[in-house]
Amino acid sequence: VSNLSHVELYTPRPDESLTFFRDVMGMEVSAQEGQSVYLRAFGEYPHHSLVLTERDRPGLGHVAMRVEAPEQVAGFADRLGAAGVEVARVDGGSEPGQGDGIRFADPAGHTVELFHDFARAVPNRPSKLRNQPEAYPGRGIEARRLDHVNLFAPDVRAAREFFQQHLGFKLREGLQLDDGTEVGAWMSVTTNVHDVAVMRDQAGGGPNRLHHVAFWLDSREAMLRAADVLAEHEVPIEAGPAKHGITQAFFMYLFEPGGNRVELFSGGFQIFDPDWEPVRWTEAEIARSIIWWGSPVPEAYFAYGT
Amino acid sequence: VSNLSHVELYTPRPDESLTFFRDVMGMEVSAQEGQSVYLRAFGEYPHHSLVLTERDRPGLGHVAMRVEAPEQVAGFADRLGAAGVEVARVDGGSEPGQGDGIRFADPAGHTVELFHDFARAVPNRPSKLRNQPEAYPGRGIEARRLDHVNLFAPDVRAAREFFQQHLGFKLREGLQLDDGTEVGAWMSVTTNVHDVAVMRDQAGGGPNRLHHVAFWLDSREAMLRAADVLAEHEVPIEAGPAKHGITQAFFMYLFEPGGNRVELFSGGFQIFDPDWEPVRWTEAEIARSIIWWGSPVPEAYFAYGT
Amino acid sequence: VSNLSHVELYTPRPDESLTFFRDVMGMEVSAQEGQSVYLRAFGEYPHHSLVLTERDRPGLGHVAMRVEAPEQVAGFADRLGAAGVEVARVDGGSEPGQGDGIRFADPAGHTVELFHDFARAVPNRPSKLRNQPEAYPGRGIEARRLDHVNLFAPDVRAAREFFQQHLGFKLREGLQLDDGTEVGAWMSVTTNVHDVAVMRDQAGGGPNRLHHVAFWLDSREAMLRAADVLAEHEVPIEAGPAKHGITQAFFMYLFEPGGNRVELFSGGFQIFDPDWEPVRWTEAEIARSIIWWGSPVPEAYFAYGT
Amino acid sequence: VSNLSHVELYTPRPDESLTFFRDVMGMEVSAQEGQSVYLRAFGEYPHHSLVLTERDRPGLGHVAMRVEAPEQVAGFADRLGAAGVEVARVDGGSEPGQGDGIRFADPAGHTVELFHDFARAVPNRPSKLRNQPEAYPGRGIEARRLDHVNLFAPDVRAAREFFQQHLGFKLREGLQLDDGTEVGAWMSVTTNVHDVAVMRDQAGGGPNRLHHVAFWLDSREAMLRAADVLAEHEVPIEAGPAKHGITQAFFMYLFEPGGNRVELFSGGFQIFDPDWEPVRWTEAEIARSIIWWGSPVPEAYFAYGT
Repeated sequence: VSNLSHVELYTPRPDESLTFFRDVMGMEVSAQEGQSVYLRAFGEYPHHSLVLTERDRPGLGHVAMRVEAPEQVAGFADRLGAAGVEVARVDGGSEPGQGDGIRFADPAGHTVELFHDFARAVPNRPSKLRNQPEAYPGRGIEARRLDHVNLFAPDVRAAREFFQQHLGFKLREGLQLDDGTEVGAWMSVTTNVHDVAVMRDQAGGGPNRLHHVAFWLDSREAMLRAADVLAEHEVPIEAGPAKHGITQAFFMYLFEPGGNRVELFSGGFQIFDPDWEPVRWTEAEIARSIIWWGSPVPEAYFAYGT
Repeated sequence: VSNLSHVELYTPRPDESLTFFRDVMGMEVSAQEGQSVYLRAFGEYPHHSLVLTERDRPGLGHVAMRVEAPEQVAGFADRLGAAGVEVARVDGGSEPGQGDGIRFADPAGHTVELFHDFARAVPNRPSKLRNQPEAYPGRGIEARRLDHVNLFAPDVRAAREFFQQHLGFKLREGLQLDDGTEVGAWMSVTTNVHDVAVMRDQAGGGPNRLHHVAFWLDSREAMLRAADVLAEHEVPIEAGPAKHGITQAFFMYLFEPGGNRVELFSGGFQIFDPDWEPVRWTEAEIARSIIWWGSPVPEAYFAYGT
Repeated sequence: VSNLSHVELYTPRPDESLTFFRDVMGMEVSAQEGQSVYLRAFGEYPHHSLVLTERDRPGLGHVAMRVEAPEQVAGFADRLGAAGVEVARVDGGSEPGQGDGIRFADPAGHTVELFHDFARAVPNRPSKLRNQPEAYPGRGIEARRLDHVNLFAPDVRAAREFFQQHLGFKLREGLQLDDGTEVGAWMSVTTNVHDVAVMRDQAGGGPNRLHHVAFWLDSREAMLRAADVLAEHEVPIEAGPAKHGITQAFFMYLFEPGGNRVELFSGGFQIFDPDWEPVRWTEAEIARSIIWWGSPVPEAYFAYGT
Repeated sequence: VSNLSHVELYTPRPDESLTFFRDVMGMEVSAQEGQSVYLRAFGEYPHHSLVLTERDRPGLGHVAMRVEAPEQVAGFADRLGAAGVEVARVDGGSEPGQGDGIRFADPAGHTVELFHDFARAVPNRPSKLRNQPEAYPGRGIEARRLDHVNLFAPDVRAAREFFQQHLGFKLREGLQLDDGTEVGAWMSVTTNVHDVAVMRDQAGGGPNRLHHVAFWLDSREAMLRAADVLAEHEVPIEAGPAKHGITQAFFMYLFEPGGNRVELFSGGFQIFDPDWEPVRWTEAEIARSIIWWGSPVPEAYFAYGT
């Protein structure tokens, strides 16, 4: 697996969700098909990194990742099938801009998609800067790119092992209770400290639950500017700005109009060492691991998902 | 009155308080006399902006302001005396670097000092930049200067009127309950949105109570860097980083080892309009007035003072 | 004199200048009358801080300052007249939003206006934040307010003395050649290090020459973001980002479409000391005084004015 | 190849170079052996990222990269040998903290080292933050980690092809003259836009020439703060702060006391797309490719190397 490609969110308020991601987050619309709108951020070349699909309640549609080469799709299908995972083929073109892919569920019921071929977006406002797809927005909060997705799971260990064994993710940081229960796993296939995280669903909700999807801002100062923009738009901010211990993220959490939690993320750190030893946080360190500095997150942070 | 000059804090742990202000806040020591240490920040030319005095419990020693010219000291003494305020003379030299002054109490019992003549500090690490007294620290959190003082008072209106009528302060922002009770007043003699604030003491403590003393950081990013430095030094952060509605301050509150609350302050706005109309916040707006964005302050914020 | 109020710029390309200040600088239009458009920045309550007036060539219309109280206008008129300065009355209402004022020329021929009464602007996008007139823009470069004006003069000393003696400005910093010639003076009536600066016109142009008008950005990071926005708009940047020694400004200089130089300004420092001793820079320090760090300004910086 | 590990610099002024990297850059000393000192930055777990070795003139000792697994060292040795590259074995322990490795020269004569096993540094000031080796410095300019190395080569194409074909680097951006001559290549094995760059040596110097070694700062604001720290230390700044078009780096270049050029780097962008198409800059775009905004670099930037 090469990298996280895009996330599909369900929203019961599609128009307001679209307005939010386009005008407040500063994203661009790539396509509109059926009940879905496809968007991307100003720093992203591929066709889309976010899909908004109308549904009666918020939630996660699917999480899509790209593999290094087109021929690897079949290899993953074979290996997953051999491991007893049910794999569905997704024909190229059934999603705008995407080539052939596969879909399957992780142990917590999240739909994961793998594919390689991806059309380049046609810029709406081409940048004069040759290595940037869209002109610097100068509007909204100017999210540069999708960063990661954080999934709720009843059994964190099972989900973590699935991503490690079947998809090649590396465990970067982990949070474990004194009785051995894993309550959080931060994993990546890139130098990011996480492309995918799994946290224990304390509400004990059903399968396929989403904690949040995160977008990258270019600086911590951009985060503070974003807070001003969000305040004027009366977007509900759940927590932050503050700094996580785990991932060292400078963050804010907010809710998009459809009810899904969105993280704005900047800072953090990158992992280059080939022999990275996963950072293990203990039960005694939970508070510090969530909040290195800044105010505590509210209780609902641990229970609310979509 | 020209400007806020310095604040004297009492501390039961003088050595730790000194270490904190010198090594963590990045201030310079100007003098040490008796049970007091005199400090200044890297951007301050005058002899000191902070006095740490050993006492058995934390609290406010006095708040000192400078007047525009030496001859005004006597004028203030006369006018205050005529208004029934008890005024004590402070001979030049009784405090290091200071010329003749006067002291008196505001209606809430805070000791206020007025003076003009003030020695320039001898830089410890002279800056190569001609308009800066000390070299840019490159260490600690790099507070540039004292910004303001926030006083607890049982009767905010009385204190506000005193500062306005006797000392020439202008009311910049005010917070009032629906029953007419004033619970906060932010006042200045400069373009700052406040040099002195008065807030209602909800704990109903005695006279001469301090809510906090605030130091200026050069940027919001400096505030976030400060949070990292403070976290490593295990300095307790009470609230923030967040943005006040009133004053638009980007802030953090922490406790120095002696127990006094210190605010780190950046951002905000300046007032140049000669006909500034005080901004009036109502009871319904209290939450927004305290926190424009960021997490709520803890309950103790409204009750704890020294 | 209370503060710098507004600056009138002449522009041969009024439509493009308006588009620039509104869409790129992020300012708001207050009124349009005759050949003039009146604008203000998002953080300014008064009616306007910038007037764009169509003329066949760029230049300075006038520089307007407010006095502390309406009755002071006549006092200034009397004192200036007694000093041999020709004073013209400007009736209230002859400029939108303004009350009675006077106009006169400084020794270098710049038209200076004094007045007090000024209408408040009606916000286009009222902020939900009670102490801010317009909502945080979230677009363009988000200039918060007019900061200062920098005037070219053949005789800096004469101009400086005029502002000090007749208008109550204080000299904050000065640059002088070894032969005693003053080549720059930075003066203020507020805590700003300068509200008005005068620099020697090396091109020896005519009277009433402008070096630049400066707008305040809220942070140095906002300056860097502005550079990205300006680059995409292909606005010519003359110099910066860099840091001036004098004023400690973090700056960029650019040209608005009419040809006038505009400075973007953040950082700097404030002066609270009532006994501030002007900082004197010498001929040997010219380079450091202009550029504390960053690349040198081009030669045209010292010669081009409008 | 997994990532860039460390760079060895020769310096004729070893004491001053050490003082610079330790006290101004804010790095930590890991070991001192023979004529070499081994340093690392506060965010780096491995034993060292910089080696300073005393020599009579400045220059590049070697560039070291880590491979994904220990057994890959021999594989690289075999393949390079088969391709006619002379490969020398480096026994584990001959450099402090390092396991077995190999050394060889690229076509421009730079010594490249490959190895895997690397001891973890023993922190001098262990961070209370579990995923950070050293406490946040709070001093100096606080470089977080080594970022990349930029090599001078008489034949850019030959060097680029070597790194691509033998070491698995991907070309991210390239600069080519109209006559087809390649004058710059930016390559990476990670999500960085470059771990290694090669630029044409316009001075036509000998083999093994270094343009610069770059260290990462956590924010653009940290860069500006660094400029203040460097100015007070009178460190010569060659160029910047400004933004490169290529790599989108926000940068400054300076010279360490030994004469080697050091870049401070923040911002930029990351590449996640598995089908990244190298960005091709043309001769007409050279100016924009070097400086997206900010002042031009001096002529010596293209000719001076060590």
